[in-house]
Amino acid sequence: MAPSLRIGVVAPGTRIEPALADRIKAFATDSFLDRAPEIIFHPQCFASAGHFAGDDDTRRNAFVEYANDPSFDAIWFARGGYGACRIAEAALAQLNGASRLKTYLGYSDNGALLGGLYGRGYENVVHGPIPVDMTRAGGEGAVKRALSWLIDRAPESLELGVMFEGKNAAFNLTVFQSMLGTSLEPDLSGHVLLLEDVGEYLYRLDRALFQITSSANVRGVKGIKLGRVSDTPENDKPFGANEEEIVRYWCAKAGIAYLGRADIGHDVENKVVPFGALKR
Amino acid sequence: MAPSLRIGVVAPGTRIEPALADRIKAFATDSFLDRAPEIIFHPQCFASAGHFAGDDDTRRNAFVEYANDPSFDAIWFARGGYGACRIAEAALAQLNGASRLKTYLGYSDNGALLGGLYGRGYENVVHGPIPVDMTRAGGEGAVKRALSWLIDRAPESLELGVMFEGKNAAFNLTVFQSMLGTSLEPDLSGHVLLLEDVGEYLYRLDRALFQITSSANVRGVKGIKLGRVSDTPENDKPFGANEEEIVRYWCAKAGIAYLGRADIGHDVENKVVPFGALKR
Repeated sequence: MAPSLRIGVVAPGTRIEPALADRIKAFATDSFLDRAPEIIFHPQCFASAGHFAGDDDTRRNAFVEYANDPSFDAIWFARGGYGACRIAEAALAQLNGASRLKTYLGYSDNGALLGGLYGRGYENVVHGPIPVDMTRAGGEGAVKRALSWLIDRAPESLELGVMFEGKNAAFNLTVFQSMLGTSLEPDLSGHVLLLEDVGEYLYRLDRALFQITSSANVRGVKGIKLGRVSDTPENDKPFGANEEEIVRYWCAKAGIAYLGRADIGHDVENKVVPFGALKR
Repeated sequence: MAPSLRIGVVAPGTRIEPALADRIKAFATDSFLDRAPEIIFHPQCFASAGHFAGDDDTRRNAFVEYANDPSFDAIWFARGGYGACRIAEAALAQLNGASRLKTYLGYSDNGALLGGLYGRGYENVVHGPIPVDMTRAGGEGAVKRALSWLIDRAPESLELGVMFEGKNAAFNLTVFQSMLGTSLEPDLSGHVLLLEDVGEYLYRLDRALFQITSSANVRGVKGIKLGRVSDTPENDKPFGANEEEIVRYWCAKAGIAYLGRADIGHDVENKVVPFGALKR
């Protein structure tokens, strides 16, 4: 029998409850039986320091420890929330050769680390569901999709469009905006760039897209696809355009191809998008 | 008798009510008597198209018309709100020689235009109160401060610190973030950079400062001063640091001098900050 996959979980942003870790482990055992992965939640996932799952040193050390540990096959980010950008540069500078051999899976705020890893040549950087998605109604499907990708590279976990594109990258739109011009921004030339968002006023998406589509790097992409934009707050006045019209507007202004919708978002239907070229 | 100053008002972002224009004109007459400026509100200020004070063409044309009109001594932005970045690049490309001879006064969302003008060598670009500030309790003081600067270059209108610095620039922190890497970002080497904000969660300020302090341009400033950060919403968990601690954190990480507080903000105490070197 092949040894089971070992997945290390860390929380670069905000914390989770220990009960969620137990639930994820039990679900993985029930769902995958003899192929169930061993999922080890770093105690840092449950730490707390103000907004964060432990202070910067605690979060950075946990990520570096697990990323550098050759016994782990994958690093799974427990949740987003905010905080990865505070530790990413220093953490990436401490990674060793073993860190390059594993898969990194997350989304939302985790994009700061995913982008930084991909920009540094890591070959298995993946945008997709994370443990906290279990707390959504119907979250089991999202978590199973993520685990099926980690265990089997299951094609049915994939965002369908990525199978037909050369190179892809996926981000939360607002997180991606904040990475522009920083050392975490990867070269996206020739990529299809998939962007999703949650909880942002449309005027904020519009402003973020001004910056995003002004970027020479982004102007070199093959095109932009728009994932789901959910939980948009009502402003005091209607914006006058929906999220797709906003993306079309800025893409047209900047001469970037708009390639339609993508099947990603802050929801249980969020599909898996491996960064770069799909490895068969 | 010297001819009175002529001030043209346009709204690059959101609209104002005609009653506010009347109130501003009456206040200027009462306050400055025979030295009262002539304040002409472009009809575009009252236009409406979704979120904006008229569509992009309407707003851009109004700004360009008044900026290029040699009969105006100053352009005053009616309010912020959001929208300047949508028209700034195209508008700036249409400006003539007469536009360079006048003063531009605004703040908040207007920063996109102020930054673009300053970056293109305009000599009288000013961060300070605008007509909509009249709607705040005690707003007369803010409006009078702005007009006193336009009419008399009154030293008492100034943010005190700028009198002792070589070069200054002031922005809303979130608006400034969105300008990084775009054609609206001016060269700030050697400047004191004054930043203020309103209505942002602390984690958003933190994330914006990650991007701001990662910028090579910003790393070339003399230092950063922090204006007031007001109306910060409560998050589901306390951030664990206040706004000044956040700025100190990122400045320290990036090797940027933190120079203390600045007397600017989204309030009636907002003082005037001319961009660049103070002209005596």
